[in-house]
Amino acid sequence: MTKLYDVVALGNAIVDVIAPADDEFLLNHNVAKGVMTLVDDFRAEQLCRALPGAQEIAGGSAANTMAGLASLGGQGLFVGKTKADRLGSSFADSLRTIGVHYETTPAKDGPQTACCLIVVTPDGHRSMNTYLGASRELARSDIDEGAIAASSILYVEGYLWDAPEAKAAINKAMAAAKRADRKVAFTLSDPFCVARWREEFRALMTEIDVLFANEEEAKALFEVDEFDSVLQATRGWPGIAALTRSEKGCVIACGREVHVLDAPAVSEVVDTTGAGDQFAAGFLYGLTHDKPLADSARLGALAAAEVISHYGARPETSLAALAAEANLL
Amino acid sequence: MTKLYDVVALGNAIVDVIAPADDEFLLNHNVAKGVMTLVDDFRAEQLCRALPGAQEIAGGSAANTMAGLASLGGQGLFVGKTKADRLGSSFADSLRTIGVHYETTPAKDGPQTACCLIVVTPDGHRSMNTYLGASRELARSDIDEGAIAASSILYVEGYLWDAPEAKAAINKAMAAAKRADRKVAFTLSDPFCVARWREEFRALMTEIDVLFANEEEAKALFEVDEFDSVLQATRGWPGIAALTRSEKGCVIACGREVHVLDAPAVSEVVDTTGAGDQFAAGFLYGLTHDKPLADSARLGALAAAEVISHYGARPETSLAALAAEANLL
Repeated sequence: MTKLYDVVALGNAIVDVIAPADDEFLLNHNVAKGVMTLVDDFRAEQLCRALPGAQEIAGGSAANTMAGLASLGGQGLFVGKTKADRLGSSFADSLRTIGVHYETTPAKDGPQTACCLIVVTPDGHRSMNTYLGASRELARSDIDEGAIAASSILYVEGYLWDAPEAKAAINKAMAAAKRADRKVAFTLSDPFCVARWREEFRALMTEIDVLFANEEEAKALFEVDEFDSVLQATRGWPGIAALTRSEKGCVIACGREVHVLDAPAVSEVVDTTGAGDQFAAGFLYGLTHDKPLADSARLGALAAAEVISHYGARPETSLAALAAEANLL
Repeated sequence: MTKLYDVVALGNAIVDVIAPADDEFLLNHNVAKGVMTLVDDFRAEQLCRALPGAQEIAGGSAANTMAGLASLGGQGLFVGKTKADRLGSSFADSLRTIGVHYETTPAKDGPQTACCLIVVTPDGHRSMNTYLGASRELARSDIDEGAIAASSILYVEGYLWDAPEAKAAINKAMAAAKRADRKVAFTLSDPFCVARWREEFRALMTEIDVLFANEEEAKALFEVDEFDSVLQATRGWPGIAALTRSEKGCVIACGREVHVLDAPAVSEVVDTTGAGDQFAAGFLYGLTHDKPLADSARLGALAAAEVISHYGARPETSLAALAAEANLL
């Protein structure tokens, strides 16, 4: 079978509405710092009004990862639901213009395209308020089993569990990947998301081949309070655990192979939004291009370093060029 | 056979002459920053005169480790040569008063007791100038094979290789440990020491069971420039690699068991002298008291954190009390 894509990614199709603000803004508007909170349409609109001059940028965790994959020269298909509205077409355009395949039919009615109001504080942390809207409507009919069977990896974001209506679509996609003997990669997305779906995520561990998690997410999953306990919890698990630790670098564990890699130096951390998404992009590019685990992690770290050096969750510099410069391609 | 000691340690018996000074002093007196340089008696005296008001404290890497072991409640025997002079008896007293066993007969003639002029810069780094003197005279007759056979671990410091006359004594001690099926632990001591004796240290890897190394020393041993390459180099090696990384914590690798541990918070780093020595003390205490590897490393990190919070290379607070408080005993 001809290989269609390196990665098929399932996620919430979200447009980010991003603005800088200080800690006082977070306190005054009851925004929880550094995490993703789900909001309804009323609260979304309220926060939007309080952040005049915010920038609209197509986002969504797995969609950002596909943007990074494309920037590295990889072939990715994103699957996620929008509505046929202004934000919906801006989301679709943002992917297609950078070479990410995106074919999910937008909903004609129902809630509007999802948006995520991101407040970036001066310390570079981002606090996210997500209105899931149309992204909850992802349905079985949106899943192209042939595309999944003809791709190396199916990548699923944990945030999707917050749209329980999408569960049937996830199940169909994962079953298609299994049948075709494709790898399934999964990202824990956010520590609070893990807390909401811990039991399901733990059960999922037996279904997946690659786990992406940052330190806080992994601690939440295994209910431990030290990084080494996370590492020990992944021992005996047959998959690849890609554990990111912000400025402490990352640890990759796969059976008896363990890598401890330092984070590349970043001259100024402007906005950590998308660091995990881009790490996944680089790592998935490496895995689907027969790179060793350590080099895949280095590609991830390189992509993450690029994205935290500016506002926004998608690369602004060609990751392929940066990776070539670093002798990683 | 009754167990005599937890650890028998072989090392250079050295009195530290320690003083704070700034980087300019290092430049003006051609002292290489952050490492251990060997000096002759003339240069030792010259530096001594330039550092009036320096404090004399019994030191020596392996002797410091035995001091830490004693502070944790462990039984240690130190083996190292002094001369029967003022510094020699001050060295012996310093060990005996804290419960470290020390029975090596001081030399009646020959060079004076070894000293190490340590310049501590305001950033907490220490630059060491060692005059080996009498410590070079360690002889086969100083090795008590019975004591080694009746102890859990023989611990040997890499600095001893700088006293090549002591080689026969080291060989006798290691052979005694092997015959009695005791473990041999070895510390690389210093990156420059590794550069001087790289081939011998590499050959030694097949003889030892536990390797202590900080990141720079380990990179020098394996001639690699990234920490992960060190970790990969220890894969397949059947022993325990205890790799320390200063503020980045430590990594312990033993076959398929790998631990990645963060460094405990230290409110103020005053003087890093002895950090490695004390890490070894805690780790050896753990190993000889049936603690799991991760807890042994935590004991090491706890001892190192204590010693870098003040001047000098030996603990000033009861490590047993600190370890009890941290639930590590």
